[in-house]
Amino acid sequence: MLQQTSPSYALTVRVEYDNDVGMLGRLTSVIGNLGADIGAVDVVRTTRATTTRDISFLTNDEEHSRDIIQAVREIPGVDVIHVSDRTFLVHLGGKFEITPKFPIKNRDDLSMVYMPGVARVARAIAENPQDVANLTIKKNMVAVVSDGSNVLHLGNVGPFAVLPVLETKVLFHKEFAGNNAFPLPLQVENVDAFVEAVKAIAPAFGAVHLEDISSPACFEIEKRLNEELDIPVLHNDQHGTAIVVVAALINSLKILDKAPSSLRLVINGVSPAGLACGRLAKLFGVADIIFCDLNGAIHSGRDDLKSSLKEVAETYNPRQFAGSLPEALVGANVFIGFGRRTVLTRDDIARMSADAVVISVAHPEPDVDPASIADVARIIATGRSDLPNQMNNMLCFPGFFKGLLQARASKVNDAMKLAAAHAIADVIGRDELNDDYIIPGIFDKRVPAAVAEAVAGAAKNSGVAR
Amino acid sequence: MLQQTSPSYALTVRVEYDNDVGMLGRLTSVIGNLGADIGAVDVVRTTRATTTRDISFLTNDEEHSRDIIQAVREIPGVDVIHVSDRTFLVHLGGKFEITPKFPIKNRDDLSMVYMPGVARVARAIAENPQDVANLTIKKNMVAVVSDGSNVLHLGNVGPFAVLPVLETKVLFHKEFAGNNAFPLPLQVENVDAFVEAVKAIAPAFGAVHLEDISSPACFEIEKRLNEELDIPVLHNDQHGTAIVVVAALINSLKILDKAPSSLRLVINGVSPAGLACGRLAKLFGVADIIFCDLNGAIHSGRDDLKSSLKEVAETYNPRQFAGSLPEALVGANVFIGFGRRTVLTRDDIARMSADAVVISVAHPEPDVDPASIADVARIIATGRSDLPNQMNNMLCFPGFFKGLLQARASKVNDAMKLAAAHAIADVIGRDELNDDYIIPGIFDKRVPAAVAEAVAGAAKNSGVAR
Repeated sequence: MLQQTSPSYALTVRVEYDNDVGMLGRLTSVIGNLGADIGAVDVVRTTRATTTRDISFLTNDEEHSRDIIQAVREIPGVDVIHVSDRTFLVHLGGKFEITPKFPIKNRDDLSMVYMPGVARVARAIAENPQDVANLTIKKNMVAVVSDGSNVLHLGNVGPFAVLPVLETKVLFHKEFAGNNAFPLPLQVENVDAFVEAVKAIAPAFGAVHLEDISSPACFEIEKRLNEELDIPVLHNDQHGTAIVVVAALINSLKILDKAPSSLRLVINGVSPAGLACGRLAKLFGVADIIFCDLNGAIHSGRDDLKSSLKEVAETYNPRQFAGSLPEALVGANVFIGFGRRTVLTRDDIARMSADAVVISVAHPEPDVDPASIADVARIIATGRSDLPNQMNNMLCFPGFFKGLLQARASKVNDAMKLAAAHAIADVIGRDELNDDYIIPGIFDKRVPAAVAEAVAGAAKNSGVAR
Repeated sequence: MLQQTSPSYALTVRVEYDNDVGMLGRLTSVIGNLGADIGAVDVVRTTRATTTRDISFLTNDEEHSRDIIQAVREIPGVDVIHVSDRTFLVHLGGKFEITPKFPIKNRDDLSMVYMPGVARVARAIAENPQDVANLTIKKNMVAVVSDGSNVLHLGNVGPFAVLPVLETKVLFHKEFAGNNAFPLPLQVENVDAFVEAVKAIAPAFGAVHLEDISSPACFEIEKRLNEELDIPVLHNDQHGTAIVVVAALINSLKILDKAPSSLRLVINGVSPAGLACGRLAKLFGVADIIFCDLNGAIHSGRDDLKSSLKEVAETYNPRQFAGSLPEALVGANVFIGFGRRTVLTRDDIARMSADAVVISVAHPEPDVDPASIADVARIIATGRSDLPNQMNNMLCFPGFFKGLLQARASKVNDAMKLAAAHAIADVIGRDELNDDYIIPGIFDKRVPAAVAEAVAGAAKNSGVAR
């Protein structure tokens, strides 16, 4: 990728400089020549001798920012008074607020929301506990829960560092689907403590969105909570991603006019998202699925498999193919990659079948460089926002939870996940569909509404709606 | 009290009736003659034969509402289509929302709040955990926590029924002090589980507001959480109430020009609020405090005392007075009542000293009927909103938590509580102060600001600010 400036690195530098002829020009040249994008130059104050200005510009990354600030400091007659970073400014004090639905200005207001009004509502709920789902925030409130054990590419950074990430999910819930949500980063030591904490706080919530939890804890936590709570629980990293990938698969098959049962699918990576993706692809009807890890295809003959992978070997790989990932790809129709770095070459992809589909969601570095395979793969999807067909679980979770809340679902089940994948795929009409448009854009407002309707419908059909 | 209509019982009845002459008049007469206050009569639709109207009115209570609806149903030619209750309508779906501070409309927005921006913020917090207090909601977020074991006058109704009450506290936090707060009713079985749950969810919060928890669990929960967490924890039922009562006491003594050390104070009731009140009054300088329970004054000679009351007997009652509550009151200067029903007569109060102060916060029924003692007590304060000098912990907690958050306090301590009581008292200037105005009104905007400043100052002075 070319180096380019990003709004994520937006600086405002306050400088005071001597009023010499050409001083501002010198300043902006230094900044511009180092590759920054200057956006605004504002006067803060002037005196006879000096001028103070705020200069705002975009940089490429943190190192680039440091270099530019250093270069500005080195200009004779220029003082750097303050540097502010817009990304940090928008995070100050958190990214959302609590807003009462109505003001409390007088005794009449109080008599409804406080005594004696609220006591009437509390008594009604005490007498009929189901009423809590209508008469409180529980009707439309999602808990976004994590222990911070697997955050983005940062790893196990804990509950404080995951909080800004969870806040962002709260924004997405509201902005894209109108769901109220609240972030609960948990300070817990083990799976039991995680499960107990979520069960303790469940009364205020209509659903639980699990996020950024390490494997294998994420499997047990999600399973136990769905069993032990009467509200639905979804681990978004697994299923949100799987649903979006299977939506892309569904639309790819529409373009290629193929049935899932005819496919040979290879999945690289046995991450939680990878495993969820294989499971959902199988539900969709793909029979021939080979999972690969760093040691190649996962088959029952391998003696290096831990028990969870033994199950993978038995559940998938019907031909019990044994070989490397590149070998597994020979003649395959679809590759789905969750690997952590580039492991495949152009030649590997070239040996797939004609009309090969490559869905490589690993990031920051995908399993295969998308630019290198443009002429050997028919359809390419990645996690990157600067290429067509971006895989992003933002497309799924806001609508998915909206559907769960609307149906007052008690559980999450497979029927909902498959319905959501079809709903995302079907947002793109047959006449719009093409190799570079197999998945809707993340700002497409049709998506959350379609996903919500599909999930609520599946909840009703599967008997878990209330 | 006279029966009167209340905005807490505001009904809207949709009726369809035959278009006979005088029909609307008959309808409104029936409703009005039964004592309702008619507020609005709106047309919904009319046909040649019938008219549909919404009639809105206030009633006295639920029984009164039922009687009126029944009477309307019995009018020939009138169909009651629907009855809605405004108190329940304002509670539908909860009383607050989650509001993003800015919209997310394009890729530039995303690049700051999502990838790669939020990863920079997460990494900054991982490297310096203290930054979580600035870069997330933790800066201004209070957890309002209860197990629903002691809710209003309803008792142990559990976490669902307490949720609307906690939501109301959330509204007060925002409306009166600008604090963001979130309600967490807990499904827990015992003190250990309560404490573990709050410790698990603490990372997202700057302070914990405990509410509506039964005794004695409330003491241990508050103590352990303040010891084990690095954010402050306050049980509002105890200390919020005690602070407001002591504020009333402070102003009463200003009017009477008396020193606390000269007082004889009798407190009826060893509820958590009563005990907290005695403790704070002692800190304020009152030396002669006698607690009474249903068996009279608590003194070391009683053999029916459980261990917590033995401590009360040793800590208070310096003269080791033994006798009934009415006997304890003879010659006392101040009575503070937390009893659950009327236990004192006009004669009991008449036997107090001259210029007696009676602060009876028990509700719905105070310890003594305030109307009966108007001529024998100098200063009277109650929990009632229809009399002067209303004791209500709404006066304290929003500002108290604002101060805790501003100071980034790590603990709650006695210095803060006494500072808050003085701050509430001092809102009323010497020239404004009189027997019927010893405590500010609950909508007085000066109060939360004054309390916040006092608490933040006390936090700094006592070394628990950050």
